[in-house]
Amino acid sequence: MLHFDNDYLVGAHPRVLEALCEDNGREHTGYGLDDVCEHAVQRIRMECGTPDAEVRFLVGGTQTNRTVIDSTLRPFEGVVSAESGHISVHEAGAIESSGHKVLTLPHHEGRIDADDLRSYLDAFEQDENHDHMVRPGMVYVSHPTEFGTLYSSTELHAISAVCHDHGIPLYLDGARLGYGLAAEGTDVTLKTIAECCDVFYIGGTKVGALFGEAVVVTRPHRRDGFGIDGFFTQIKLNGALLAKGWLLGLQFNTLFTDGLYVDIARNGVEQAMRIRRGFTEKGYRRLYDSPTNQQFLILDDATLSRLRKDVSFSFWEKYDDDHTIVRFATSWATRPQDVDALLELI
Amino acid sequence: MLHFDNDYLVGAHPRVLEALCEDNGREHTGYGLDDVCEHAVQRIRMECGTPDAEVRFLVGGTQTNRTVIDSTLRPFEGVVSAESGHISVHEAGAIESSGHKVLTLPHHEGRIDADDLRSYLDAFEQDENHDHMVRPGMVYVSHPTEFGTLYSSTELHAISAVCHDHGIPLYLDGARLGYGLAAEGTDVTLKTIAECCDVFYIGGTKVGALFGEAVVVTRPHRRDGFGIDGFFTQIKLNGALLAKGWLLGLQFNTLFTDGLYVDIARNGVEQAMRIRRGFTEKGYRRLYDSPTNQQFLILDDATLSRLRKDVSFSFWEKYDDDHTIVRFATSWATRPQDVDALLELI
Amino acid sequence: MLHFDNDYLVGAHPRVLEALCEDNGREHTGYGLDDVCEHAVQRIRMECGTPDAEVRFLVGGTQTNRTVIDSTLRPFEGVVSAESGHISVHEAGAIESSGHKVLTLPHHEGRIDADDLRSYLDAFEQDENHDHMVRPGMVYVSHPTEFGTLYSSTELHAISAVCHDHGIPLYLDGARLGYGLAAEGTDVTLKTIAECCDVFYIGGTKVGALFGEAVVVTRPHRRDGFGIDGFFTQIKLNGALLAKGWLLGLQFNTLFTDGLYVDIARNGVEQAMRIRRGFTEKGYRRLYDSPTNQQFLILDDATLSRLRKDVSFSFWEKYDDDHTIVRFATSWATRPQDVDALLELI
Amino acid sequence: MLHFDNDYLVGAHPRVLEALCEDNGREHTGYGLDDVCEHAVQRIRMECGTPDAEVRFLVGGTQTNRTVIDSTLRPFEGVVSAESGHISVHEAGAIESSGHKVLTLPHHEGRIDADDLRSYLDAFEQDENHDHMVRPGMVYVSHPTEFGTLYSSTELHAISAVCHDHGIPLYLDGARLGYGLAAEGTDVTLKTIAECCDVFYIGGTKVGALFGEAVVVTRPHRRDGFGIDGFFTQIKLNGALLAKGWLLGLQFNTLFTDGLYVDIARNGVEQAMRIRRGFTEKGYRRLYDSPTNQQFLILDDATLSRLRKDVSFSFWEKYDDDHTIVRFATSWATRPQDVDALLELI
Repeated sequence: MLHFDNDYLVGAHPRVLEALCEDNGREHTGYGLDDVCEHAVQRIRMECGTPDAEVRFLVGGTQTNRTVIDSTLRPFEGVVSAESGHISVHEAGAIESSGHKVLTLPHHEGRIDADDLRSYLDAFEQDENHDHMVRPGMVYVSHPTEFGTLYSSTELHAISAVCHDHGIPLYLDGARLGYGLAAEGTDVTLKTIAECCDVFYIGGTKVGALFGEAVVVTRPHRRDGFGIDGFFTQIKLNGALLAKGWLLGLQFNTLFTDGLYVDIARNGVEQAMRIRRGFTEKGYRRLYDSPTNQQFLILDDATLSRLRKDVSFSFWEKYDDDHTIVRFATSWATRPQDVDALLELI
Repeated sequence: MLHFDNDYLVGAHPRVLEALCEDNGREHTGYGLDDVCEHAVQRIRMECGTPDAEVRFLVGGTQTNRTVIDSTLRPFEGVVSAESGHISVHEAGAIESSGHKVLTLPHHEGRIDADDLRSYLDAFEQDENHDHMVRPGMVYVSHPTEFGTLYSSTELHAISAVCHDHGIPLYLDGARLGYGLAAEGTDVTLKTIAECCDVFYIGGTKVGALFGEAVVVTRPHRRDGFGIDGFFTQIKLNGALLAKGWLLGLQFNTLFTDGLYVDIARNGVEQAMRIRRGFTEKGYRRLYDSPTNQQFLILDDATLSRLRKDVSFSFWEKYDDDHTIVRFATSWATRPQDVDALLELI
Repeated sequence: MLHFDNDYLVGAHPRVLEALCEDNGREHTGYGLDDVCEHAVQRIRMECGTPDAEVRFLVGGTQTNRTVIDSTLRPFEGVVSAESGHISVHEAGAIESSGHKVLTLPHHEGRIDADDLRSYLDAFEQDENHDHMVRPGMVYVSHPTEFGTLYSSTELHAISAVCHDHGIPLYLDGARLGYGLAAEGTDVTLKTIAECCDVFYIGGTKVGALFGEAVVVTRPHRRDGFGIDGFFTQIKLNGALLAKGWLLGLQFNTLFTDGLYVDIARNGVEQAMRIRRGFTEKGYRRLYDSPTNQQFLILDDATLSRLRKDVSFSFWEKYDDDHTIVRFATSWATRPQDVDALLELI
Repeated sequence: MLHFDNDYLVGAHPRVLEALCEDNGREHTGYGLDDVCEHAVQRIRMECGTPDAEVRFLVGGTQTNRTVIDSTLRPFEGVVSAESGHISVHEAGAIESSGHKVLTLPHHEGRIDADDLRSYLDAFEQDENHDHMVRPGMVYVSHPTEFGTLYSSTELHAISAVCHDHGIPLYLDGARLGYGLAAEGTDVTLKTIAECCDVFYIGGTKVGALFGEAVVVTRPHRRDGFGIDGFFTQIKLNGALLAKGWLLGLQFNTLFTDGLYVDIARNGVEQAMRIRRGFTEKGYRRLYDSPTNQQFLILDDATLSRLRKDVSFSFWEKYDDDHTIVRFATSWATRPQDVDALLELI
């Protein structure tokens, strides 16, 4: 069976595992208060160009979204997201469970649009009933989006400007950030993200780590500024504080040494591009234009059932009576020969 | 100034106030555990044809929605509503604040459609990711809807059947129920509602009471059945338990004596029909076809600014560049001469 | 039957009811945004000596505590209270339901002690694990306490000083405040309370109103200061916003005209003092020394069962094998002849 | 520096790490739905003697407590715990954050007492105000307790009987369960726990795993019985669902092969007993009598400051003016020579 189900099919990149093994017998302070984490924080600050950023390591994506959003919003505020955003659809109500509404905007191939956002925020302010409505208190974007698409630097800056005009922090979910940074033609770097966003996370789970996400609060001390009060305690009470926190530091240290994080993501992107080209050449259509490791393809039902015998991938939704949208996901670990085999099957 | 802003512009119906005045010096047990409430419960049970129903009196609508929904849902469940539903738009996130997502369906002149609902619930069950999504655990309808429209008995039964096929309770928000029951041509009675719904409330605040809503849990003891565990305590912890609970019993007792509730609502409907006819005859268009006390009209901007000098009513939203949707609300207390004066102005 | 069960046995003071009746047909803006409320706000500000205070009217006590505390605390904070505090014992978990721990201190006849509080807050700061603990974010006192006892002005100032040294707002629950202000020998006035507290409420339900509590945020705009962001919306989402808000304004307006609030409370205190003297003269012991409208007495079981035939009052708890602590409550509405009759029975 | 700070100072037991390394390149289904987890579930069911138990793997202890408790309780229920319980003191309000009060009983060397529990539950039922109070909906015990002490089988059965007489599930926090099972003289086995408890967890983080806790719901399908509805989704929405769930399965599989879990815990206990004997022989007193890997000792201040130079351990609290209670923790990884060195220092 060829597996293109998702981007968390295997364990860690060998160098990450090696770091965990080498360190295994060493004693550390718990809860991320150790030297290894401190070191990883420094590297991430440097890569982001934000020497004062508060950086914290959490275990998983839903946990991170829940913790960051609930720690930021006041009880009467909600978070604005594309209707296709992960927090809106596939986190089992984690945001609502912590008391906050997800306020949705239409998505444009997975992205929100700065003009839509501005209209929405302006309309909210002008609505004479807005005191009876959920106040937008944060904006959430994912990069890459849930459809594998990317924002341009211009788009991110525009969204950031709208947010800051309205005094609302911008949060970027980078569960698959490596694949975004490694995409061909993107002009968005970690520094772009750190400039635009008040808080974001760098995904480890899907890009070389066993598990782990690094949250970066870019401007925790600016005067007018966004910061997460009592973030450590908020992580704890959300059940997101790993006892052996250095395990996260070790992994991010390795991923942010010698550019490993983006380097290994490149394989994910390359294999995805091969799949895209392969299907396109055979005349299959794509849903949206993803330059990253997730490819959404429209398959006729005959092809679909034929492929299912040898390949596993995700069903997304029915496209029409005879066609289905499916997702092929690659990762840093995808073997080129598996893609060869897939392409031979179509 | 003529006031058509809303349906809670004045105090109580004189007979309700009289009941409060007569009783004022009498001593009662608190928290609704008194004889007056017991009497009101019996009357309501009888009117609904549900001798075993659990009936509780709360103070206001948002409070009631919040308490009923949070008391019913399990932590991983959400409530399905029309996207125009009050809980979705104008309750400041009360439902999310108690931990639950409002799952929206498109509205059809304010109503949800049984087929849409069935498709949604079926799709949820079939979605291979549904364990990562918010499970629909209750269905919410309002009758009249937020646009003044009504369900037919057939429509309510159809929605009820879908709910019960899926093992999901149906909840009806009757903030303006009186105006629904008093509408011309409706075939929905209190008994229809009690048959179709697992829980609903009869709105007092907008129909003759100073304040107050009566929640009816229709089948609290049926074997397979819906019931709200610890409802009294849930009301208390939501801050919805009135110390002098008999004030609510007195009001509902009066409203449910000699058919007062529907009788007085009739005036609200009649005055609304006069407004509708008046505007229609002058060529103004309506948004949707409301047979109840809220009329949504499309006014050109000249008319709008002219009327605003002498009449107060609600801005709803822009219809197009030159037109605006506005709402005129009447109530049991609307004076016919005020409607005369309004109609003369147009 | 003689009723000394509680202090919310009857409706409203006649003048309050009169005000409601007179106004009944008049049209008002909803949600407390009307002129009557504005007027009541001005009166309360004047009485408190806080011309800039934010004043809001809510319906009941648990609702008010829940809304104020949840609106103030950040997600990782709790509220400090005497272990006997209403929020700790008899609000069915309303505070925890909104996400916050009630952190308890031992009570001294219902009061917390400034030294205990300082020790607790200092110990918290010094505890090396405090980032794993609930941070105290507000201090709650009730005045009168749940045992009818009162703070002195010195005590309140001392608690206030500890709070402000630690940057923590002080909140006073004045459900029975009238009886505290009317007590003999007290040196605590509304102005004392407004000086010491960042937020407090003046109870109406138990002191002459049909229902209603007035929340006063004393220093909403001071630079370093405490304020409740989006308080209106927080009231709404807690289900605590009364549609016909002017009903609350009318009542507080009346209560704060010509000193009615304290005047009528005086009867409650006087009748309580008569009960206290009567029982004391017969040799019955008291639990604590309450100068207000609640008297906790220790009855032998023979007396207890004899009295129960003609008098209703609250069982509090067993004192020892043969004695029980019971509560007699009076109010503004207590008839002197009922106290006469009670005293004859003992 | 000698480290006796806690029992999560190093990574994983070598065999656990080996299992992770061997499997690292293998592809698995996510979210614990893989064969490895299934295998681990089977082993745990067998060890517990509960072939039908629902077993789920989570990442950490606070997360597990929060998820289990919130998934079990209804909105108006709280969890009963010793006042010294981890959920009451050191989880930053995770339980309250999810809406539930921790109802405390006095502790007896860390344990709750079945008679105290019965009295509390009976008193609750008999309290005429109990509908205004938080209903006890679950009982929480830790074994070993936070003080390292253990329940006897008789004690656990007694607590279980009280719980079941009152229809309340019993939950056991086994963060350090291995050290409890490996203690000399204990008659509590996994089977005892599975018999007595409705749900419990077997701690991995502190007993040989990198991280991970195995939750066992013992009687998910019994007719009258306890079960956690939608547990998978509840884990997800609490941010506690590990994407690469098989990492947890692999670790528990290894720990439950050839008795490794208890075997390695034995070293923790042995080294703790050496510390206990060493200090006792020198005349130092102990707080309570712990047969497990945590030893609470009372040190005079001179000894304390002398030891601090070479040894790190936890400050617990002041005992009196000249003495301090401190904690020495050992683990499966504690080196005997470190204990030698410690004992030489005293």
